[in-house]
Amino acid sequence: MEKFLIIGERIHCISPAIRKAFEERNPEQILKRAKEQLDAGAHYLDLNIGPAEKNGVELMTWGVQLLQSEFDNVPLALDTTNRKAIEAGIKVYNRSKGKPIVNSADAGERIENIDLAAANDAMVIALCAKEGIPKDTDESMAYCTEMLERGLSLGLEPTDMLFDPLFLVIKGMQDKQKGVLKTIRMISEMGLKTTCGLSNVSNGAPKEIRPIMDSVFAAMAIEEGLTSAIMNPCDLRLMQTIKTCDVINGAVLYADSYLDL
Amino acid sequence: MEKFLIIGERIHCISPAIRKAFEERNPEQILKRAKEQLDAGAHYLDLNIGPAEKNGVELMTWGVQLLQSEFDNVPLALDTTNRKAIEAGIKVYNRSKGKPIVNSADAGERIENIDLAAANDAMVIALCAKEGIPKDTDESMAYCTEMLERGLSLGLEPTDMLFDPLFLVIKGMQDKQKGVLKTIRMISEMGLKTTCGLSNVSNGAPKEIRPIMDSVFAAMAIEEGLTSAIMNPCDLRLMQTIKTCDVINGAVLYADSYLDL
Repeated sequence: MEKFLIIGERIHCISPAIRKAFEERNPEQILKRAKEQLDAGAHYLDLNIGPAEKNGVELMTWGVQLLQSEFDNVPLALDTTNRKAIEAGIKVYNRSKGKPIVNSADAGERIENIDLAAANDAMVIALCAKEGIPKDTDESMAYCTEMLERGLSLGLEPTDMLFDPLFLVIKGMQDKQKGVLKTIRMISEMGLKTTCGLSNVSNGAPKEIRPIMDSVFAAMAIEEGLTSAIMNPCDLRLMQTIKTCDVINGAVLYADSYLDL
Repeated sequence: MEKFLIIGERIHCISPAIRKAFEERNPEQILKRAKEQLDAGAHYLDLNIGPAEKNGVELMTWGVQLLQSEFDNVPLALDTTNRKAIEAGIKVYNRSKGKPIVNSADAGERIENIDLAAANDAMVIALCAKEGIPKDTDESMAYCTEMLERGLSLGLEPTDMLFDPLFLVIKGMQDKQKGVLKTIRMISEMGLKTTCGLSNVSNGAPKEIRPIMDSVFAAMAIEEGLTSAIMNPCDLRLMQTIKTCDVINGAVLYADSYLDL
């Protein structure tokens, strides 16, 4: 069994400090957050530049080169709705540590991001949704297979697709949680890889509770077969949880020091 | 979905303070540990008097009456290999808060504890083992169905049996963990209830790691259908985990204060 893949979420234009850094092309905050996440154990970094409709091509190019030159070609997820920006990012991306991940396609308006990934030998996050929230596992699975077929027909390897069952907020959509977990199992039983926006589950909950909810949901989702997450690697409780899941699943050999590794 | 059933493990003759209290029939330590566990959220208390070959009848009678009179007929698991002691405990047991649990039967030498439970309208923990550790899920399931058939033939309700898949230590039996989780799922898919000795998983691990391992394994096991555990309710991280599982499973309605309830 492979280790759980951790994609660090903290370089995100929704953070005022990061948005400002993007606007000013100021490396400081971006490199700081990248280092924190890599030190904490992130395997990939998500580079979310937002819609970036005007300057996305130049901004993504800058961001990819900045991070990869500073951190030994760290592998990245290129996160924006601006397709040209993703293509530009891939153009300057160094693959020596892992393929770029296109973040993200869905079964609706963004389905052509699967084509983009296939044309560029990239991985792609495939969100199992079309318009709004799927009403049940059957609907999610229909989108999953639709995207899988499209990817395969274009020459993607199944393992180049990370299917995201769409994690939902517990506070407000509590009755949807078992369905999300069931969807993970069904995707996983097809031998496919999965990912998620983990912190969705604890959105709106009190700050001190969020690491608890994220950790517990992560352990349950990993038991259903979840293979990766876009998440905060600086959340110590969450990282302890994921390392312990790796031990329980036999992906990492137990040692008394396993949490420090 | 029902809430996870928490059986407090801390009145156990392996603790020197408790053993001394048993020997001297001194209520103080026993009542203190009972209160701590009930305050922390235990639903049942396990009363483990050890083999108690000589004085088990009298000791169990004393313990049951002591705990039930002090804590409003708190429901108990009667834990000893001395069958006469269990019978004596049941004789004085008040059922107003829940049936007594016989702890425990197995598919080997202790199988007659199923008969004892049936004859006394008690619940019973049925350990899916015969001699040593089952080699795989198939073997565990054979014992599960053997004990189930015996219980049903004697008039037990299936819900009066708590099947224990035998939790194993990670440090030393890491490769067995996925099998234990699979066994839980198979028992659970039969609509049966389950329990476990949760702290087995972290046995021998550094003290600061044990609550992490126990919590993560609990979340994974609950996702596979585990419905109860004999555990330490005074482990805060573990209790937070179980309460969060109850919320994710819809057994408890979400409120920002759910961890305090």
